[in-house]
Amino acid sequence: MNNILRYREEIDQAIASISFQKTPVELYQPVEYILNLGGKRLRPLLTLFSAEAFGSTSKAAMPAALAIEMFHNFSLIHDDIMDDAPLRRGQKTVHEKWDLNTGILSGDAMLILAYQYFENYEAEVFRDLAKLFSKTALEVCEGQQLDINFETRNDVAIDEYIQMIDYKTAVLVGAAFEMGAIVSKTSLDNRSNIYDYGRYLGIAFQLQDDILDAFGDSETFGKQIGGDILENKKTFLYLKALQNANEQQKIDLERWYQTTEVSQQKIDAVKQLFIDTNVLDDAKVMVEDYTNKALNLLSQLDIDEGYKLELKEFSLQLMNRKV
Amino acid sequence: MNNILRYREEIDQAIASISFQKTPVELYQPVEYILNLGGKRLRPLLTLFSAEAFGSTSKAAMPAALAIEMFHNFSLIHDDIMDDAPLRRGQKTVHEKWDLNTGILSGDAMLILAYQYFENYEAEVFRDLAKLFSKTALEVCEGQQLDINFETRNDVAIDEYIQMIDYKTAVLVGAAFEMGAIVSKTSLDNRSNIYDYGRYLGIAFQLQDDILDAFGDSETFGKQIGGDILENKKTFLYLKALQNANEQQKIDLERWYQTTEVSQQKIDAVKQLFIDTNVLDDAKVMVEDYTNKALNLLSQLDIDEGYKLELKEFSLQLMNRKV
Repeated sequence: MNNILRYREEIDQAIASISFQKTPVELYQPVEYILNLGGKRLRPLLTLFSAEAFGSTSKAAMPAALAIEMFHNFSLIHDDIMDDAPLRRGQKTVHEKWDLNTGILSGDAMLILAYQYFENYEAEVFRDLAKLFSKTALEVCEGQQLDINFETRNDVAIDEYIQMIDYKTAVLVGAAFEMGAIVSKTSLDNRSNIYDYGRYLGIAFQLQDDILDAFGDSETFGKQIGGDILENKKTFLYLKALQNANEQQKIDLERWYQTTEVSQQKIDAVKQLFIDTNVLDDAKVMVEDYTNKALNLLSQLDIDEGYKLELKEFSLQLMNRKV
Repeated sequence: MNNILRYREEIDQAIASISFQKTPVELYQPVEYILNLGGKRLRPLLTLFSAEAFGSTSKAAMPAALAIEMFHNFSLIHDDIMDDAPLRRGQKTVHEKWDLNTGILSGDAMLILAYQYFENYEAEVFRDLAKLFSKTALEVCEGQQLDINFETRNDVAIDEYIQMIDYKTAVLVGAAFEMGAIVSKTSLDNRSNIYDYGRYLGIAFQLQDDILDAFGDSETFGKQIGGDILENKKTFLYLKALQNANEQQKIDLERWYQTTEVSQQKIDAVKQLFIDTNVLDDAKVMVEDYTNKALNLLSQLDIDEGYKLELKEFSLQLMNRKV
């Protein structure tokens, strides 16, 4: 997207101009803290792009974009509690820096603050945005619950995994795009197509994330390689490896996933099993499939060819990203 | 209110007809559990009454009433985590029956489910309801944060305590009434007056609760008497007692509040200090003051005299309640 840098700057400015001088400070300091940990601002950026593509402006779409970013950060705070994560973007998580209660309550406040951004719009737009938001937010909760369930289940099917990442990650990408379309008051067809486009892209994005987590370059990826393996995460790679494995490979893989050992040896051994069972190729094909599903929708979008080209480039960049 | 029993029955029926057969079940079972622990259904009942008083029907107001009840139960789940409470209405709290993560996530889902009830209304009504709801919900979070702050503060002023119970309890009572007014599309003056009426009544209600917690009859009140004292809660009684106390009484009271002793001796000693410092009378005067503030607003409400009489009786019942 040609305007990514401009969008990101506009979003950062908008976040910087939010007033956190509200009382009690103990409630609002963590909100300010997490919003200023940085991040790619990917989701709100999609809302701004979509608004411009459908004929509105980034300025008009900014409140909706901030609602998306606020919600995303709410979910990070609560997920970090549930995952017992000490760090987020290299800094202490909210419940680590403060405490559990602060994490719960500030997260709750952020979910409500997200809804309040829709009050910047007239009634019909407000209703459409809030309705899409509620549906999406509930699906994100359902996705998080599925993720938790998978931790203790040994029979997770690949379809179920796809549904989990769809809910936990992809629907919010779809909603981010659709919110720009809602603000622009475009047709229901356009809304539905850009939503589906974002959703397919979101699934491809998460599958690519799974690949990078195991096979990325720690320099460019920015996270420790093998984190999912050390946490025994049942990612696509793991589930597909179990499917492809011969008896011995299956035993080895399951044995590794029964330990909580934190070692390079474990990472290397599991990665080797992924390679031996050819799942890296399978995963790449899946990323390509979902990216193509997204790209196929572009022809149905009633937007200028220039914007379609940008979306096409964006999809291909995500598919081939190393970061 | 003449129709309390009918309202309660309608609410219980509406709650019983909510479909909780959604997946993942781990997310929705706790929602069903907490909603079916019973309770007085006080808040949704006020919404139904208000709707009828302003010319609409209880049926039309039911979704808004359920939103209020859903929100109230969301706040119970998250508050019980923060207070580390094992029991709620004599049954295990959600985080005790399941676990911490379930409590957080199911609570989050309930907050979103509350918003979804507003989707039953046309755009303008939806917007007004959601806007009032967000403002109120954020104030409830702020009230909860103030309550947490007070635990470790030794300089809580009585004004601050009133603000805390206003936010934590009273604004939701005001909002419950106003939602009925919004559904009925009555005047902004009526909306504002019934909101203030409910808010004053909510403060009176909580102050009466403080009194009953220390001086009620455990048979009728339904909770263990002295719970606030054992938890060293800085209620109106405690704060006012510190104000009224002579030097020795102040030392005694503060010493009792520095122990975490759970004994009848502590309850009796602190209650005696409350009596010796005359704060029971002060508290009763405060309850009366706030009830009168509420009653004074009745003349400004543009509703039938019959409804005003019901509200008057209701206010006086709350003020004199033993349960």
